Amino acid sequence: MKTIGVFDSGFGGLTVLRELIRLIPDARYVYLGDTARLPYGSKSRETIARYAISSAKFLVDRGADLLVIACNTATALAIDDIRAALPIPVIGVVEPGTQAALDAAKASSRGIEETHVVVLATAATTQSQAYSRSLSAAGLLSTEKACPLLVPLVEEGWLEQPAQKAVTLEVLRVYLLEGLEKAPNANVLLLGCTHYPLLKPLIETTLKTLHHPMQIIDSAAATAQAVAEALPWPIVPVEGLQPELLFYATDSIEKFQRLGSSFLNQPLAQVRLVDLGG
Amino acid sequence: MKTIGVFDSGFGGLTVLRELIRLIPDARYVYLGDTARLPYGSKSRETIARYAISSAKFLVDRGADLLVIACNTATALAIDDIRAALPIPVIGVVEPGTQAALDAAKASSRGIEETHVVVLATAATTQSQAYSRSLSAAGLLSTEKACPLLVPLVEEGWLEQPAQKAVTLEVLRVYLLEGLEKAPNANVLLLGCTHYPLLKPLIETTLKTLHHPMQIIDSAAATAQAVAEALPWPIVPVEGLQPELLFYATDSIEKFQRLGSSFLNQPLAQVRLVDLGG
Repeated sequence: MKTIGVFDSGFGGLTVLRELIRLIPDARYVYLGDTARLPYGSKSRETIARYAISSAKFLVDRGADLLVIACNTATALAIDDIRAALPIPVIGVVEPGTQAALDAAKASSRGIEETHVVVLATAATTQSQAYSRSLSAAGLLSTEKACPLLVPLVEEGWLEQPAQKAVTLEVLRVYLLEGLEKAPNANVLLLGCTHYPLLKPLIETTLKTLHHPMQIIDSAAATAQAVAEALPWPIVPVEGLQPELLFYATDSIEKFQRLGSSFLNQPLAQVRLVDLGG
Repeated sequence: MKTIGVFDSGFGGLTVLRELIRLIPDARYVYLGDTARLPYGSKSRETIARYAISSAKFLVDRGADLLVIACNTATALAIDDIRAALPIPVIGVVEPGTQAALDAAKASSRGIEETHVVVLATAATTQSQAYSRSLSAAGLLSTEKACPLLVPLVEEGWLEQPAQKAVTLEVLRVYLLEGLEKAPNANVLLLGCTHYPLLKPLIETTLKTLHHPMQIIDSAAATAQAVAEALPWPIVPVEGLQPELLFYATDSIEKFQRLGSSFLNQPLAQVRLVDLGG
């Protein structure tokens, strides 16, 4: 059985793992959350590349045959460095998100030329402009909107209890209005952060309230799809197969286990602590 | 002229510096924000102590005669280690906050025994239980309430524009209701995070809406007061004197300068980058 390594600075990448398990159940998965050194967002490109490469090499040492960079910041700033440093195929989250947006544009009545993509992401990701460069190269018009409050709202779990959910809906309304102000004709919404799939139902509600229908592209699901398509070995569908899951974190095992289960949509049986240095 | 070193993991400690400048204008201030290694909250006690000591030694090397730890996490987890490692007096934020709460209790009609303090702080600070231990040692009953969304709301500047301010008020309402549910008779509210002084007007509004009057203790102002009282040299009040201010950050100079000015309530003339290692 082949091993797929999945790397993120935290546990957001578990939304990618959730989709991977669904599409490719006959694999062994080793997930590393570099929680001791997060957030990557405030660090320089050199530092992020150094952290990401040491994390990626750890996953190669654990037997990874393919590596998924389930982290927008690491993909945006260091995927070329990671690819150069590793002997195995590496797939990031930006290209699959762009590809999914392009597919949506082609399938829409507007077509590629009339499609405008709004990208919701963290400040670090929007500052890197990785999505606008990638979308522009694909011929798509785009507007990036930084949404720094969404990760803390998801990590706090303010998604269900009425008063908390009302706050999250209001924050989404403010961000979406600000984003749509710059792009009034936008028809595609790209979720450019691995935390955001948990917000998808609330984003759908908000778009309905704003009477602004958009096609939502989930970069986590798009990345899993891209991995399934690029897999250098055949997928063997086995009824009822439970893939082998191994989790490593560089700090905060307890928080990783507690919050991670809502990202993965199943309990994290065991999380091991690993020290990758300063 | 004497030098006061002020240290925080980020720029929150600038609210302490703002109060220090007001109380002790005849000093030279050297401020270090260890922005490259923040947030300290998710790190282990050993790591935080190591970071804080290297930061503190940097300030001693820059001539500090007295050190203020304007960081709740570093104070809560490492003040004893820092004091042991340094040849100069060290003042943290927890003891002055406790002292101010005690003074408020003594002055109130309730007295010490009937006073109940609610402490608002980050998850890292509440987990350390530094405030409840310190308040309990002073004979005060307390309840700590973790408020992880407040720092991102302050850093996003969601304090004035109506739709954004409405969100912040609603978040404060949820947190205060949750805190007061555990402590229905609480009469003192301690702001146990150096970001929170910027929220004070909105907290006052929220308490009015909840019809629950409380005395608000600002640990930043309390710390500056404690420094002024403990100063091992005399304060010379000079009309119109502008203290000398030097700022160092370990990363993100631009963000430090942009956000820092609202914490300090004046522009940060020059911020220098310093590398303290991984």
